[in-house]
Amino acid sequence: MKRLLLNADMGESFGPWVMGLDHEVMPHVDLANVACGFHASDPDVIRMTVRLAKRHGVTVGAHPAYPDMVGFGRRSMACSAEEIENLVLYQVGALAGVCRAEGLTVGYVKPHGALYNDMMRDPEILAAVMRALVAYDPRLPLMVMATRDPSAPREMAERHGVTLWFEAFADRAYDAEGRLVSRRELGAVHHDPAVIVDQARRIAGGEPLTASDGSRLVLAADTLCVHGDNAESIAAIQAIREALDGLASAS
Amino acid sequence: MKRLLLNADMGESFGPWVMGLDHEVMPHVDLANVACGFHASDPDVIRMTVRLAKRHGVTVGAHPAYPDMVGFGRRSMACSAEEIENLVLYQVGALAGVCRAEGLTVGYVKPHGALYNDMMRDPEILAAVMRALVAYDPRLPLMVMATRDPSAPREMAERHGVTLWFEAFADRAYDAEGRLVSRRELGAVHHDPAVIVDQARRIAGGEPLTASDGSRLVLAADTLCVHGDNAESIAAIQAIREALDGLASAS
Amino acid sequence: MKRLLLNADMGESFGPWVMGLDHEVMPHVDLANVACGFHASDPDVIRMTVRLAKRHGVTVGAHPAYPDMVGFGRRSMACSAEEIENLVLYQVGALAGVCRAEGLTVGYVKPHGALYNDMMRDPEILAAVMRALVAYDPRLPLMVMATRDPSAPREMAERHGVTLWFEAFADRAYDAEGRLVSRRELGAVHHDPAVIVDQARRIAGGEPLTASDGSRLVLAADTLCVHGDNAESIAAIQAIREALDGLASAS
Amino acid sequence: MKRLLLNADMGESFGPWVMGLDHEVMPHVDLANVACGFHASDPDVIRMTVRLAKRHGVTVGAHPAYPDMVGFGRRSMACSAEEIENLVLYQVGALAGVCRAEGLTVGYVKPHGALYNDMMRDPEILAAVMRALVAYDPRLPLMVMATRDPSAPREMAERHGVTLWFEAFADRAYDAEGRLVSRRELGAVHHDPAVIVDQARRIAGGEPLTASDGSRLVLAADTLCVHGDNAESIAAIQAIREALDGLASAS
Repeated sequence: MKRLLLNADMGESFGPWVMGLDHEVMPHVDLANVACGFHASDPDVIRMTVRLAKRHGVTVGAHPAYPDMVGFGRRSMACSAEEIENLVLYQVGALAGVCRAEGLTVGYVKPHGALYNDMMRDPEILAAVMRALVAYDPRLPLMVMATRDPSAPREMAERHGVTLWFEAFADRAYDAEGRLVSRRELGAVHHDPAVIVDQARRIAGGEPLTASDGSRLVLAADTLCVHGDNAESIAAIQAIREALDGLASAS
Repeated sequence: MKRLLLNADMGESFGPWVMGLDHEVMPHVDLANVACGFHASDPDVIRMTVRLAKRHGVTVGAHPAYPDMVGFGRRSMACSAEEIENLVLYQVGALAGVCRAEGLTVGYVKPHGALYNDMMRDPEILAAVMRALVAYDPRLPLMVMATRDPSAPREMAERHGVTLWFEAFADRAYDAEGRLVSRRELGAVHHDPAVIVDQARRIAGGEPLTASDGSRLVLAADTLCVHGDNAESIAAIQAIREALDGLASAS
Repeated sequence: MKRLLLNADMGESFGPWVMGLDHEVMPHVDLANVACGFHASDPDVIRMTVRLAKRHGVTVGAHPAYPDMVGFGRRSMACSAEEIENLVLYQVGALAGVCRAEGLTVGYVKPHGALYNDMMRDPEILAAVMRALVAYDPRLPLMVMATRDPSAPREMAERHGVTLWFEAFADRAYDAEGRLVSRRELGAVHHDPAVIVDQARRIAGGEPLTASDGSRLVLAADTLCVHGDNAESIAAIQAIREALDGLASAS
Repeated sequence: MKRLLLNADMGESFGPWVMGLDHEVMPHVDLANVACGFHASDPDVIRMTVRLAKRHGVTVGAHPAYPDMVGFGRRSMACSAEEIENLVLYQVGALAGVCRAEGLTVGYVKPHGALYNDMMRDPEILAAVMRALVAYDPRLPLMVMATRDPSAPREMAERHGVTLWFEAFADRAYDAEGRLVSRRELGAVHHDPAVIVDQARRIAGGEPLTASDGSRLVLAADTLCVHGDNAESIAAIQAIREALDGLASAS
C-alpha cells in the first residue's frame, strides 16, 4: 500500500505578522506548501521556512497564488492564462532560489486559495498552471483536488506531460461529486478527532467515505491536507500521523 | 585584448507602464540587467524581456533591488544584512524561474540603484550580497563598480569565492578615486557622442581617463553600462558598439 | 440646455512611470478622475495632479479601484461588499487629504476599470459603493454609465440618497441596450474625428445615436468621458470641446 | 494638574494577520494611533479599529509611516522631504475618509517607527511632517518625543503654527538627554510593574526620573505611550490607568 503523505500550508507569516504554528506542524508532515510572497510570506519568512523543512526532512512545495496579500490569495482575480502562467513561474522560481541556498529544490507545486479553486473549476486556468510547470520542469508534480471522477484533470495532465498528486481532506465533508461541502453549510467541517482520523484512515485505505447525500464516495488520494492553526489542529495532525503510520506498518 | 561587454538595464516596465526602449537596445548589448519585480517589472514583463534577450543571444542578469516600486529602488532602505541576502536570493530565483521556462539561466547579478550604491559604500552589504550569490551558485559573477583601487571588493570576493565583473560608464565623469561625479555637479554627464565614444574606447583599451581633478585615471573594466531611454541614447549605444567592435577586430 | 461636462482619467502615473498627457488634457476638461493609489498613482503623483487641476479650475473626482497595480485595476476581484465599501472610503479619503492641502475638495466619485464594470453589472457592488459615498458625504455625486434604461441605478440611488452623474462616450459604439460594444468587435471604437464629434454633439443635444443593431438610442448623459493618451486623442478632446462650447453658446 | 493621556498603537493587523490586542487595550486608553495602510492595516482593519475607538470614546490619531509593510515601517527609507509631506497627507486623508464614515475625525498625527525616529533626528523631516499637517489642518496636533530640552521642535512648531503633544514612556529607561536608551542595552526596558507605574506617576506629576547616567531628568509630557501586545502589557496599562486616575482625582 502506498503511503498517504501529509501536506500542510507553511510559511504564511509576513513581515512582522506571524501565522501558523510551523514549528509544531513541520515534524509531523511530509510536504510543506510554502507561500511564495504573493498571498503571504516574504524572502525572510521563506528562508526560515525552508530551513525548518530541511531540518525535518520535509519536501518543500511551491504554493503560488494570485497577487493579493490583503485578501490572502482567497479572492478570485480575473487574470489571463498567460498572466497565471507567468506568476506561477515567478513564484516557483523565487522559492527555488531560496531553496537552492539551503541545498534544497522545490519538490512539487500546489496552487493556493482562489487560484487552486479556479484551476479545479476552469480548464483554461488548469492548463495555464500545467504549462508553467512543464516549462519550468516537467518532473515537478502538481497537487490537485481528488474528486469522484478525476478523469478530466488526468487527461489534461497526460497531454501536458505533468504528474498529478491528488489531495484529500480528513476534516471536511464531501458532496457526491467529491467536492468539498461549502463551509457555509452545516457539517462542512469535522471537529471530532475520531471522525477526522477515521476519514483519514478510509482515504488511506481506499475505503469509501459517506458523501453529504449519503452516497458512497471513494477518493484516490496521494496526500492528505492538514492544518496547523492551533493546538487542537496540531493534535489532529498527530492523531492522523499515528493512524497512517499504523496502517503503513500493518500493510 | 578582452572584449568590453555592454550591459543595460532592461525589463523596467511594470504592469501597464512602459519604461525603456528594450526592443531597440537589446540588439546592441551583451548583457541585460533584468529587473526582478521589487523596483520594477512583473512576471509578464520578465517573461517578455527574457524572450527578447533570448532572441538576440543576450545574457540575462538579475538586477535585484530594495522592495520599493514607488521609489524605483533608488531610495536607500535600512535593511539588515540577512534581509538583503534573502531578497537577493528571492529575486535571482524568481528571474531564474522565468528564464528556465525559456531554456535560459541567469548569467550574473547586478544589484540595482540604492542597493548597488549601498553595496559599494558598505562592506557589510557587499558581503550580504556575496553570501547570497555563493549560496545560490558560486559561479554566478557579481557586477560591481570599477574604481581606481578595486582591491577591497576584490579581496572580499576572493574570500567569498565570488567572481567580479567590473563595470564602467562611458557617459559619466569620474573623480580621482574613480567614483562617479554626482549628477548634481556640472559636467557630471557627458552628452557629446564623440566624448562618450572616446571614453568607451579608452576604457576598452586600458587607456587613462582624465578625472574631474585633472588626474589620470585608469579603470580596469569588464563591462560598460549603457542606457536606452531615448533615440539619442540608442544612437550612443550603437556608436559605442561600433567603436568597440572596431577595436576588437583591430586587435 | 445643460452643459455636457468632459471628464478624463488623470494621475495614472506611478513612481517613475509616466502615463497619460495630463498637462495637455487638463486645460480642456471639466472633471479629472484622479487615481487614488490602488490601480495607479502615488502620493506624489496625486499631489501634482491635484495642483494641475487647481491651476485649470478643474473639479477633482476620486477614481477608486480594486487593489491591483500590475493589472491596473482592470481585473475583476472577488471582493466582498464590505471590502468594496471600505476600499472606496480609504481611497476617496486619501485623495481628499491631498486635495485639502491644496484647498480643494473631492467633487465626485467614479469607480475605475473592473470596479466600474462590476458595479454596473452587480447591484450588490453598486450598493456597496453607494453606502461608501453616503457614509462619506451624501452630497458627493457618483458617476455611472448612461444606458438606455437607467431606472435600476436611479432607483437605488434614490433609496440611498445618492446623486448620479451619467456618463457617455463619444468614441465608442453602443448596443441596443446602451452598453458599450466590446472592444473585441469590429467598429467598437470610433477613430474618425468627425464621427466622434457628431456623437458628442448628439449626446449633448439629447439626439438619438444609432446603436449597433441599427436601432435608435437616446442616452441621457451629464458628462462625456474623453481620453488623453496621445496627440490624436488630445485633438479629439479639443474638437469635442469646441463643438460642445458652440452648442452651449448657441442655446 | 493636566491629565496625562494614554496613547497606544492600534489597527496594526493586516489582511488575515492579526496583531495587537486592540479590543483589550481600547477601553483603557485616550488616544489610538491608527496605522494607515503603509506599514500595517488595510481599509477593513481601519474601519474596524475606528469603530472600536468610537465605541470607547477614544480619539483617533493618524499613525503614518514609510511605505514598507514587510519591514513594518521600522526601516529608515531615504525619502525626500516632499515625498514625506505627501505620504503623510495621503495617509492622514485615508484614515480621515474612514473616520468620516463613522462620524469621527482624525484628532492628531503621530508618525510611526522609522519615520518617527527620523523626524526626531532630522529637522528637515520634522519640517516636512509639519508642512503636511499645516496644509491639512493647522489645528491637528503632532505627537513628538518628550526630551530634556524640547526647544528645537517647539520653535519649529511655533514657526509652522503646529501644536505639539509630547509623549513619554513609562516602561523605557532614558539617557541624560531624555532619549530612550537603546533596546540593545541592558535595562533599556522596564518589566517590573511597580517600576512602570512609578515612572508613569512621576511623569504625570512632573517629578524627575533617574536617567541612565544617574542624573535627574524632568520630562514635560502630554501623553504616555503604552503597548498592548500581551496579557502582561494589558495589565500594565490598567495599572498605569488606575495610578493616573488616582492622581487626577486627588488633584
